[in-house]
Amino acid sequence: MGCGNWGTASSKLIAENAARHPEFDNTVRLWVLEEVFEGRKLSEIINTDHENKKYLPGIKLPHNLVGVPDMKECVQESDTFIIVLPHQFVKSTVRKMKEMGPIKPGSICISLVKGIELTGRDVVCFTETIEQELGIPCLALSGANVATNVAKEEFSEATIGYKEKEHALIFQKLFDRPYFKINCVPGVAAVQVFGAIKNVVAISAGFCDGLGLGSNTKAAIMRLGLNEICKFANKFFSEDCNKVVFESAGVADLITTCIGGRNVRCAAEFAKHQGKKSWTDIENEMLGGQKLQGTSTAEEVYNVLKANGIEAEFPLFVITYKIAYEGADPADLIRQFSVEAITPF
Amino acid sequence: MGCGNWGTASSKLIAENAARHPEFDNTVRLWVLEEVFEGRKLSEIINTDHENKKYLPGIKLPHNLVGVPDMKECVQESDTFIIVLPHQFVKSTVRKMKEMGPIKPGSICISLVKGIELTGRDVVCFTETIEQELGIPCLALSGANVATNVAKEEFSEATIGYKEKEHALIFQKLFDRPYFKINCVPGVAAVQVFGAIKNVVAISAGFCDGLGLGSNTKAAIMRLGLNEICKFANKFFSEDCNKVVFESAGVADLITTCIGGRNVRCAAEFAKHQGKKSWTDIENEMLGGQKLQGTSTAEEVYNVLKANGIEAEFPLFVITYKIAYEGADPADLIRQFSVEAITPF
Repeated sequence: MGCGNWGTASSKLIAENAARHPEFDNTVRLWVLEEVFEGRKLSEIINTDHENKKYLPGIKLPHNLVGVPDMKECVQESDTFIIVLPHQFVKSTVRKMKEMGPIKPGSICISLVKGIELTGRDVVCFTETIEQELGIPCLALSGANVATNVAKEEFSEATIGYKEKEHALIFQKLFDRPYFKINCVPGVAAVQVFGAIKNVVAISAGFCDGLGLGSNTKAAIMRLGLNEICKFANKFFSEDCNKVVFESAGVADLITTCIGGRNVRCAAEFAKHQGKKSWTDIENEMLGGQKLQGTSTAEEVYNVLKANGIEAEFPLFVITYKIAYEGADPADLIRQFSVEAITPF
Repeated sequence: MGCGNWGTASSKLIAENAARHPEFDNTVRLWVLEEVFEGRKLSEIINTDHENKKYLPGIKLPHNLVGVPDMKECVQESDTFIIVLPHQFVKSTVRKMKEMGPIKPGSICISLVKGIELTGRDVVCFTETIEQELGIPCLALSGANVATNVAKEEFSEATIGYKEKEHALIFQKLFDRPYFKINCVPGVAAVQVFGAIKNVVAISAGFCDGLGLGSNTKAAIMRLGLNEICKFANKFFSEDCNKVVFESAGVADLITTCIGGRNVRCAAEFAKHQGKKSWTDIENEMLGGQKLQGTSTAEEVYNVLKANGIEAEFPLFVITYKIAYEGADPADLIRQFSVEAITPF
């Protein structure tokens, strides 16, 4: 469900595996929100040229991958769903899926949606929303991988978070390729929390770069971020969230996100200008007006911490927010941790 | 014990804290293996100019730090020892310390020595060697920090591994500064294993760079390395070695070591030339003839794995060794993990 960049790249993986493993149907349906691109329907382009020219140009798609604009067909003919939608469309789309049902009994689902919902005092994973709406189990997949590189078959990894091992085994078989290795961990929340909140740490890491701090200082900030992500996940979800650290969705995704990427670059620019250049100006100059995820997530995380009265336990998230939005001096990022008093352990 | 670059930088920290905390003697003795530098004795330079002009030039040292060339005085007058020696001199120096004794009852010790001893089937930490020779408890300190930057008071962190919490509290107080934050974890082996074997992963990461692979592939290799370090530590030592991952001596040190540094740069050069350029040539060109630690550690780790018949459990360490020393194609680094078969979990 979803034929964007990541939706198309992941459906390519799945179609390759569906063709290899006899236990899967050969045909893989890619639900296409129909639109016209260069004078032709997108589903027609996908099915005739075997390429998603709008969202994943230059990548040949397997012939057993079929673009289907009819959501009813997708919902009624399938029993294994992969949700790859922009987060703002998840709820409305799965509601529509429900209306298009009935969904086959015994169906299962996995979410590749990036982000979590942070509103008021609550932290809600998209897997919860999907499970509630569709009434079927929903797993999560995340990791240090980028759609375009996966499509080009560059080696990377991903992590599946599960509650029932038997479901994970099915999705592992469906996603695992020689260039895309899958590990599975119990629990679905941590995989999603890491995927969302790593972007806040990327903002902190970018501030380090902008302040001209060395690699050991930056590594300290990334380490503190790793610990706060785990603490956050463990606080809001009942599963043991520390296992994911060792996986692609944990340490590997945090590393790539904090070393390069748009959040780091833009936050470095912000710190270089001592916060005097606005995020909007930076986004306009450096991202052609696209919006940063890390800053908005930093704000949402801060609001949730505040609503729960637990800001003091998350000094890195709090100072990152305050630098980004409340005019705190970027150098406070480090000053925060440079305290005279010894923390007894 | 040891007035090299790291010995001097860490004794500066300690002297600062000894002056602040009344429970410590004000005078901190820095044992100096006497030598002549620019026509003067090194201990005299340290005590007159308050600067170690040979090993840490440009850094002013506290006046309560005293260079002492007489090992007997250091041993007999102290009850808290910090060992900061090049690994090849540890055993002989602590033996000599023992001869210079008696060591005061109730004395404690901490090792800042980098590396572990890998010989035959055995993996021995320097803390074990030191404890055996001196007959006093020995803790370990390691982390993502570089002597010169610590001396310049750039913010970084370190981890103390301990068996008895009361000892850790003393050393935390002795090392912790606003620019050098200390966390403590139970167990001494993992802290040292990480400090040594991270350099092997840095070689693997350098191969990625040399092969022109993207950041997600490199992050996957670093993650696999992190997991193999933990597996290695847990296999050879009875303590729970996974806790250190969350600390400066764990994930932070691995990140800085694999992102920059000499091991990465030299390994990248090696892979670029498909292993046709020798390590000696690379060391001569890029390090002015100094020796790499990562390659020799890779060889020692491989020999220990082989002697124990457990190569199959450490695919990354093994392929890294084989590329470095047995002419394996650098691209095998990835091919190794790009297997058709699904690993059931």
